[in-house]
Amino acid sequence: MAMTGVLRPGHCQLRVLDLEESVKFYSNVMGLKETGRDASGRVYFKTSHERDHHSVILREADTAGMDFYGFKVLNKATLDKLERDLLEYGVATERLPAGDLLETGERVRFVAPTKHVFELYYEKTEVGDGLGYVNPGVLVPDQKGIAPIRLDHWQIHGKDIDGSRELFTKVLGFSLVERIKGEDGETDMAIWLTCSAKAHDIAFVRDERDNTVHHLSFLLESWEHVLRAADTMSANNVFIDIGPLRHGITRGTTIYAFDPSGNRFETFCGGYDFYPDMQPYTWTWDEVGTAIFYHTRALNERFLTVVT
Amino acid sequence: MAMTGVLRPGHCQLRVLDLEESVKFYSNVMGLKETGRDASGRVYFKTSHERDHHSVILREADTAGMDFYGFKVLNKATLDKLERDLLEYGVATERLPAGDLLETGERVRFVAPTKHVFELYYEKTEVGDGLGYVNPGVLVPDQKGIAPIRLDHWQIHGKDIDGSRELFTKVLGFSLVERIKGEDGETDMAIWLTCSAKAHDIAFVRDERDNTVHHLSFLLESWEHVLRAADTMSANNVFIDIGPLRHGITRGTTIYAFDPSGNRFETFCGGYDFYPDMQPYTWTWDEVGTAIFYHTRALNERFLTVVT
Amino acid sequence: MAMTGVLRPGHCQLRVLDLEESVKFYSNVMGLKETGRDASGRVYFKTSHERDHHSVILREADTAGMDFYGFKVLNKATLDKLERDLLEYGVATERLPAGDLLETGERVRFVAPTKHVFELYYEKTEVGDGLGYVNPGVLVPDQKGIAPIRLDHWQIHGKDIDGSRELFTKVLGFSLVERIKGEDGETDMAIWLTCSAKAHDIAFVRDERDNTVHHLSFLLESWEHVLRAADTMSANNVFIDIGPLRHGITRGTTIYAFDPSGNRFETFCGGYDFYPDMQPYTWTWDEVGTAIFYHTRALNERFLTVVT
Amino acid sequence: MAMTGVLRPGHCQLRVLDLEESVKFYSNVMGLKETGRDASGRVYFKTSHERDHHSVILREADTAGMDFYGFKVLNKATLDKLERDLLEYGVATERLPAGDLLETGERVRFVAPTKHVFELYYEKTEVGDGLGYVNPGVLVPDQKGIAPIRLDHWQIHGKDIDGSRELFTKVLGFSLVERIKGEDGETDMAIWLTCSAKAHDIAFVRDERDNTVHHLSFLLESWEHVLRAADTMSANNVFIDIGPLRHGITRGTTIYAFDPSGNRFETFCGGYDFYPDMQPYTWTWDEVGTAIFYHTRALNERFLTVVT
Repeated sequence: MAMTGVLRPGHCQLRVLDLEESVKFYSNVMGLKETGRDASGRVYFKTSHERDHHSVILREADTAGMDFYGFKVLNKATLDKLERDLLEYGVATERLPAGDLLETGERVRFVAPTKHVFELYYEKTEVGDGLGYVNPGVLVPDQKGIAPIRLDHWQIHGKDIDGSRELFTKVLGFSLVERIKGEDGETDMAIWLTCSAKAHDIAFVRDERDNTVHHLSFLLESWEHVLRAADTMSANNVFIDIGPLRHGITRGTTIYAFDPSGNRFETFCGGYDFYPDMQPYTWTWDEVGTAIFYHTRALNERFLTVVT
Repeated sequence: MAMTGVLRPGHCQLRVLDLEESVKFYSNVMGLKETGRDASGRVYFKTSHERDHHSVILREADTAGMDFYGFKVLNKATLDKLERDLLEYGVATERLPAGDLLETGERVRFVAPTKHVFELYYEKTEVGDGLGYVNPGVLVPDQKGIAPIRLDHWQIHGKDIDGSRELFTKVLGFSLVERIKGEDGETDMAIWLTCSAKAHDIAFVRDERDNTVHHLSFLLESWEHVLRAADTMSANNVFIDIGPLRHGITRGTTIYAFDPSGNRFETFCGGYDFYPDMQPYTWTWDEVGTAIFYHTRALNERFLTVVT
Repeated sequence: MAMTGVLRPGHCQLRVLDLEESVKFYSNVMGLKETGRDASGRVYFKTSHERDHHSVILREADTAGMDFYGFKVLNKATLDKLERDLLEYGVATERLPAGDLLETGERVRFVAPTKHVFELYYEKTEVGDGLGYVNPGVLVPDQKGIAPIRLDHWQIHGKDIDGSRELFTKVLGFSLVERIKGEDGETDMAIWLTCSAKAHDIAFVRDERDNTVHHLSFLLESWEHVLRAADTMSANNVFIDIGPLRHGITRGTTIYAFDPSGNRFETFCGGYDFYPDMQPYTWTWDEVGTAIFYHTRALNERFLTVVT
Repeated sequence: MAMTGVLRPGHCQLRVLDLEESVKFYSNVMGLKETGRDASGRVYFKTSHERDHHSVILREADTAGMDFYGFKVLNKATLDKLERDLLEYGVATERLPAGDLLETGERVRFVAPTKHVFELYYEKTEVGDGLGYVNPGVLVPDQKGIAPIRLDHWQIHGKDIDGSRELFTKVLGFSLVERIKGEDGETDMAIWLTCSAKAHDIAFVRDERDNTVHHLSFLLESWEHVLRAADTMSANNVFIDIGPLRHGITRGTTIYAFDPSGNRFETFCGGYDFYPDMQPYTWTWDEVGTAIFYHTRALNERFLTVVT
């Protein structure tokens, strides 16, 4: 089987300051579907297109940010093997029992060198996208708002991105796809990694602030949907950080904006497909503006400094 | 590593009736780049975006059609293992030496139950896409004509598609993504298989005519490029079979047309991403029109009957 | 003032076989908004974007087809002058009083040489598009289904298209934009006329069947909306005649389909802008396929023969 | 005839600092076609789609900026009448003889209250778009670079925009389409005027710097072309001021950038159609950010201050 191991970003738990305001935002503006609430008050969402029970979990808290990042893996054997590999590599793991997250099987949790909390799982109830598997048609029903296709990836920040890169590439089977080198021409300032044929499933940026998140990202259908997303954000008074624009890195087209708690999110589309016979792209420090914002070729302060 | 085994369709050798007329067509209308000619007179092409030396090889012959279909695999170990697995499964293999195709390493060839000739290889000279791997920018240079991104997949016909499905799924690691069931509700009339995260890397259709090809397919960037491709075809008197349209199967948007030799080709974009936790879609016989041509929900005779 | 005289197609009264079924279709699939019903049972609709009270009026009848075609003119002085000009040209007119159509001022009605019933009016209540005129924003609210921007034009059939052309160009100030010549190279088989900067506001086709309609046409925002319209039609079991495709004539991109009564409608976008320093385009009879269906360059029988 | 009087922006003469560098830019990056050079060294360009001999004239000078703005009118009678109307309104006019600009008939020149030099003309040699008027097809040949459809409009600055508005609406037949009111709720800070069915053919902004230009604007085919234009600019080291983005005013989607002399230009598409039964849109001062840059709802200093 060609697709094995870690499949994709599966879920993440986002801290929000006002739960009901955030539920409204993610329901009505982002257009996610609420699929459940658990005993601890967490609210579960999926996109209209996603088949699994949830991808975004909201937890009310005093500070914004992300509690943990979950990847779905192929099956139980993969989960068990990856846990053994992690332990062998020297990373402590924790097993969380099935049911700790709604409709989700057991999870293997670990902390990466950048101090982010990751978890692997292979079981989550398939609630479907409303089309079924027999004569499905093409239009996923009940779309509203921005209506992304899926939770796609995260960009997260921390000090030891070399350590996290080694862990993800050596143990979890990720590939390095793009990198920005620092002024010394040696140090990786940011890296884009994939576990699939996407240009990125996760990105790490070197930052003194360990265990922080720059953005969670949602995939859209087309550049026209990127425009409609920007229009929808503005019509709903969502604060747009930057965009629409194209990235040099990944070649995706995108918008960045903030949820009501100040968590940055991305709605993007496009980007090339990754195959493992490709070499990683390298961007030099003098071209970092072009790498990030291909059109203006200049970064803005807010994009560089705000993380949660 | 998450992407392993068979990576993707890598090349195919197409028979054309008039070589120079076909070279003009694939150069000027399709917008492929000629990368070489070998001692036997074959002409090699790649798309502007492809990095490997070639994906389409033209051979002049008395009849149109496809000589063989090549998949790139991850590395030598994969090639050797897949050859062993084929032999163990009872499929005879043949090793073709490096250099038999220009800039291409050794290939392992075998015949599938549908009588098509397949081959696996892992080495082909990377000639690049003109952007390089350092500060690449985003616009692949030297695009003209239809300018597809890549050779994407093939739809091929033969009697024993059950046999080919078993071979591809059990030995080569492909996954079944979609299927059309016959009137009996049991027989697979057509199957779509992937070795990656694409909705299909190859499709087999049940047909009395063994070792025939319905179309080779090229990926485009967007639905607007599909329109431009149709405009470009018409401006160049290319005979369009059908389209632009959307498929029910794979949800891609597409045009079918014929090259000067009568080989059908597709230029398409879109379609969902495949993950192995997805169940295969099944289309029933009464919905076959919707499955193939989602908008008109009716097949045309030419689409059903012409193969080469 | 640069835009004067006849402004645009303003409304038309369509005969439908089953009123409530048609109301459902035009409301839910086409996405028009019902704005009123009158004492005679007629149902009035506007698109979300249109500001005037209505553009499509449905009347239940035993046969499908169009009762009359209304153009909005600039003001009362224009209406009075055009009536005088019609009379002077030898065309009888009839004044219909304000209120005969809901929220509509007096209308001047006449019959063209092709036996179609036309009317001119200048007053209709502005109900708005929901954005208002102060800080309007950009997203017209309450869009659903196909959600066209406006009723755009009609293609209508009759014997004496030369007579109708003369009437529209000499009296009503329309310009000839495109024409298809017959086999003799002389006779106009079809003509496209504009009263504005559009490539067409009305088209006449030579046909033995006087006072028939080929289609009423709705404008969409983009080629991607054309695709979504086709998807929406199929998902709602609307019978698509042909498309998506591009026209040679006008260069618009389009779909043709049928409403539940068998009235053909078009949902299209694009086409060049007309300026009166442009010469009319002429298509010769041997290129009629290319003129109509630019991609396939061949007409289908149904498109040629079905009118209501 | 419904389209009469002033038809559209027809040409403008742009001052550039280095003629050959500018010729290269407008030829290779913008993708205009050079159509002639005159005895005084001026270089004439048209877009691929434009039929008239030229729309942009480059003149080498010590300062950037625009020498004059020309509108094409319907015919000689219109030219003569508008000259009489200007004189009667108290505006001095000057007749420039045919041939003063290459392939152009006589022009009537006048200075508007904002001190910009305007001219009207009705004759210019039609060199065509390469498609002809018989069986034209749809793809305009020889497109390269950004390849706009046409010179579309200008935004120009000066003190007495009330005076210029009165002149354009009362004498030249333009209509007011949108306006931004100042903090007092009374003063027009900027106005958008049309002489056709476009959302704007010219815009005036209140500014102490008389006879200055904010940008000249080129129309593109689609939002996807806006993206490609931005990509093309960046690949050619063109300095992008802002965009891609959507305007609140006109609802167009756009990019602003600078030519090698520092003249700002716009490449845009979209926007609603104007009809004279529409009321003007008013934007209040507190929504000026939304009016101009709909997504970020905030202006940038450079956009506000740089004119040439």
